[in-house]
Amino acid sequence: MSLPRVHKAEVVKMTGIDISESPDLVAVEEPLEIRIGYGATHQREQKAISVTMRTPGNDFELALGFLFTENIIAGYDQVVSIQYCANVGKQEERENVVRVELRPDVKIDFDKIERHFYTSSSCGVCSKTSIEAIKTGCSIPVSDLIITGDIVRQSPGQLREQQQVFEYTGGLHAAGLFDRNGNLVLMREDVGRHNALDKVLGACLAENKIPLADYFVMVSGRASFELVQKALMAGVPILTAIGAPSSLALKLAADFGMTLCGFVRKDSFNIYCGRERITN
Amino acid sequence: MSLPRVHKAEVVKMTGIDISESPDLVAVEEPLEIRIGYGATHQREQKAISVTMRTPGNDFELALGFLFTENIIAGYDQVVSIQYCANVGKQEERENVVRVELRPDVKIDFDKIERHFYTSSSCGVCSKTSIEAIKTGCSIPVSDLIITGDIVRQSPGQLREQQQVFEYTGGLHAAGLFDRNGNLVLMREDVGRHNALDKVLGACLAENKIPLADYFVMVSGRASFELVQKALMAGVPILTAIGAPSSLALKLAADFGMTLCGFVRKDSFNIYCGRERITN
Repeated sequence: MSLPRVHKAEVVKMTGIDISESPDLVAVEEPLEIRIGYGATHQREQKAISVTMRTPGNDFELALGFLFTENIIAGYDQVVSIQYCANVGKQEERENVVRVELRPDVKIDFDKIERHFYTSSSCGVCSKTSIEAIKTGCSIPVSDLIITGDIVRQSPGQLREQQQVFEYTGGLHAAGLFDRNGNLVLMREDVGRHNALDKVLGACLAENKIPLADYFVMVSGRASFELVQKALMAGVPILTAIGAPSSLALKLAADFGMTLCGFVRKDSFNIYCGRERITN
Repeated sequence: MSLPRVHKAEVVKMTGIDISESPDLVAVEEPLEIRIGYGATHQREQKAISVTMRTPGNDFELALGFLFTENIIAGYDQVVSIQYCANVGKQEERENVVRVELRPDVKIDFDKIERHFYTSSSCGVCSKTSIEAIKTGCSIPVSDLIITGDIVRQSPGQLREQQQVFEYTGGLHAAGLFDRNGNLVLMREDVGRHNALDKVLGACLAENKIPLADYFVMVSGRASFELVQKALMAGVPILTAIGAPSSLALKLAADFGMTLCGFVRKDSFNIYCGRERITN
């Protein structure tokens, strides 16, 4: 039994002076708490690492992707198991808490996590130090994958075609993994762009596909710093977006030699950096 | 001297086999750290509360709005001063750290803040408990403001007209405050929707306009749980969005008697709850 991804709602539609009522669907948004189980076998401990508002579905991938792209775990081999937390009060809340069991020898630097997520005396305050922090954490170089402009232009159509929930609700972002021939290999949706991307990257991690040297990733919406950072952690050489990039997304991509494209349409797109990976 | 809101970038545009290069503008995204100064006069302390990725501009409003909508301060009268932090290392980082000085008698519940933002054993895990937590924190009832459907339909055009940066970069979200006659009173932009809304609400708080009983708020993009929660904290009776609402946004709005509209276009829109506030 899994949580629904869409929710029925009664909607009043006002078109000029016409008013009609009809049932409609909205994308489900529910909190997901990610907990880790860690420490030596005889003294296991549990800690809640994050709560994110997400659309249910592929929750284990989301947890895995989040822990990996936020540099809390270094690989899937550090994970013993992933499951919904059985000791959560009510039945309907159980699928909102995921516990990731780590190997007893995995060391977790909770101070670093705390700095990273909230306060940050050492990172986050200026773009330079943020990028320095990522350079330390991210050791995967991006590959020299080359794709054609046609493949880039065809990708939004493919993503759209596979977006199951968007057609009904208009409320979900998508992230897609494409191979070098432009085939959409994996697509995940979520109310949060970063969650959609974490789901894709978590699935790749579990399938031992990382670093993603032979793939490119497309996201609906805009390309923010956070999305570029997550893609870099997985060694994605080319990130394309339907929307605009931000200044810091561009700077981070350029610093790491990643290709960043924006405003991707079926007839045109912009390359912001890493032009050498796109041929005519 | 303030940080720029747009950044020049050299862009390669690929349209079919045509390739052109031209300068373009992208929206600036930079981290803002919000610190509070608190405690008795003779033993003041400072604590970093949050780092958010934002577009520079109206940073003091953003800090104020954030502290208010996250229920850390109860009103503007608890604030002594807001300024950029002078003791931050480099010149260019100074405008990325804002310090809000609170009155010596203001009590801050750091445990609650910590639970709220990251781990949350008491809230966040299921939508019910999240909503309960907001009910405790939010004591402003929403007013019975009534507006016409025409006013709702005209608002996206007005928001768009005033969006200074969007025209150039395509990369910014906007939040607008409208009066009961449909006049756009205040508009703020940001790479993050929640920041654009916090900037508007922070400005309103500083002008002693809260609760916003006679106004409605429009946001570009989608209506998430977080946006409804922030609007509720400021007593906004009607929230309209250009995009779709999520299930939890709808549930929260309905529970508090707020009117929530989505997919607002110049010729039509949907009312998800609180229909009694919209007349023909």
